[in-house]
Amino acid sequence: MRYEDLIGRDLKDVRAAIRNGAYRGHTAGLAPGRLQANLVILPEAHALDFLRFCLRNPKPCPIVGVGDTGDPRMPTLGDIDLRTDLPSYRIHRDGVPAGDAPDICDLWSDDLVGVALGCSFTFEHALIAAGIDLWHVTHDRTVPMFRSTRPTVPAGPFAGPMVVSLRMIPEDRAREAAAISARYPQAHGAPVHTGDPAALGIADAGAPDWGDPVPLPAGHVPMFWACGVTPQAALAGAKLPFAITHTPGHMLICDMAEDADAPPVAPGRIPDQQGVMP
Amino acid sequence: MRYEDLIGRDLKDVRAAIRNGAYRGHTAGLAPGRLQANLVILPEAHALDFLRFCLRNPKPCPIVGVGDTGDPRMPTLGDIDLRTDLPSYRIHRDGVPAGDAPDICDLWSDDLVGVALGCSFTFEHALIAAGIDLWHVTHDRTVPMFRSTRPTVPAGPFAGPMVVSLRMIPEDRAREAAAISARYPQAHGAPVHTGDPAALGIADAGAPDWGDPVPLPAGHVPMFWACGVTPQAALAGAKLPFAITHTPGHMLICDMAEDADAPPVAPGRIPDQQGVMP
Repeated sequence: MRYEDLIGRDLKDVRAAIRNGAYRGHTAGLAPGRLQANLVILPEAHALDFLRFCLRNPKPCPIVGVGDTGDPRMPTLGDIDLRTDLPSYRIHRDGVPAGDAPDICDLWSDDLVGVALGCSFTFEHALIAAGIDLWHVTHDRTVPMFRSTRPTVPAGPFAGPMVVSLRMIPEDRAREAAAISARYPQAHGAPVHTGDPAALGIADAGAPDWGDPVPLPAGHVPMFWACGVTPQAALAGAKLPFAITHTPGHMLICDMAEDADAPPVAPGRIPDQQGVMP
Repeated sequence: MRYEDLIGRDLKDVRAAIRNGAYRGHTAGLAPGRLQANLVILPEAHALDFLRFCLRNPKPCPIVGVGDTGDPRMPTLGDIDLRTDLPSYRIHRDGVPAGDAPDICDLWSDDLVGVALGCSFTFEHALIAAGIDLWHVTHDRTVPMFRSTRPTVPAGPFAGPMVVSLRMIPEDRAREAAAISARYPQAHGAPVHTGDPAALGIADAGAPDWGDPVPLPAGHVPMFWACGVTPQAALAGAKLPFAITHTPGHMLICDMAEDADAPPVAPGRIPDQQGVMP
């Protein structure tokens, strides 16, 4: 099944197509309005430390769901089977990617724990809805991501630098973009830095470590958000014998609305840092 | 040392007075502006399930910090020693309170994990700052709390009903109170119910299960928030052989500002559910 065949279809159809293996592509733009999540599956022996790592680094690693040990369901996120409900899974052995798979029925075991983490789609949709253009979305590219010099707070074997994503925002909308994304703490929240990339140890904003380069036009300011690649990098650094994640871009689509818990704001009328309306 | 002696003193003084045992009273209103947190300490064998319980019930159980096993520090919340930095601790054995203690130096062990949970002080301060009077604060009473019929999502041995707290809010400010508290997902967030207490299985809003009754004046609407007693009730129901919590009202005072991550809003100008300004 092609991506085009699922555009505009509802959650039930999209999930069925993924679950029965008919669709194995990326999920950006599918089942619009539903929360999409990163997925990490790892042995229970490492689950407590991994949850601690995420809880200590909530901006890059916002936990939106956690399963019981050995149970592939995640009822708080919907009628979900973690073994089949992503279009593509990435298998990791000793911290190194060891191939992708369309399902993990043969790899699931009584020892595994699934953790779902919020993703940037949520706040990107809110920025786009406010009329803030995102170049990588408009041009169907992957957002540029960088290994920053800002450290994470470690937990057990999990550590490493915070990975950040870059979006170039028109200068006169930067404050608004920050306020909008701050409404979504479950999706990386407010930017971690706005302005000179060197403050994050990024020498060349045009040369990302992951994703595609974007233009850096005059009149735009670089805004950096904590990125969901951070836990993947920590997972790699921990060199776990075995773990499973989503294949980048191939997310878990949940039942709930992506803005279910976001506090209201006034579109086009954003208060300043002191809460005063312009 | 009396409560009055610490009013208006800074965090350093307050923490020192608590740490050295000079002050053993409640913490409401102390070190204003700093995040205060509920505390649960339990053996590592139950920590993964307890974190799962909290993560599945984020409104009553918003995790703001978690320590390493056996480590009484919690550096993400400040220069904290969990053994001494609460004015009073409650010891639980087999799920039953077994006395309070001014410190837990003799009870700490290499097996324990500390979990800090956000508390309602944070959004109460924001409501009061917006000019919304809270009767129990003005009259120095404990907020009324009720065992509701709304279930929590269980995890391992942890389960039970959601406990809710009641605040009577002037009808014309109810929507504003909801919007303000929604800014603080780490402190119970938006109300879980506004209006008829019977919808939560509460037969008599004047007869709370915990805390003090409040007047139910005409022109005010009952608003119910998820309550931090929920995890304590779940802990009791799980009948753990050993656990430690804060004594009610005797909280962990953290370094960070209580509104550090809250998105901006416009005081007095609250958009409706569709985000449209009045």
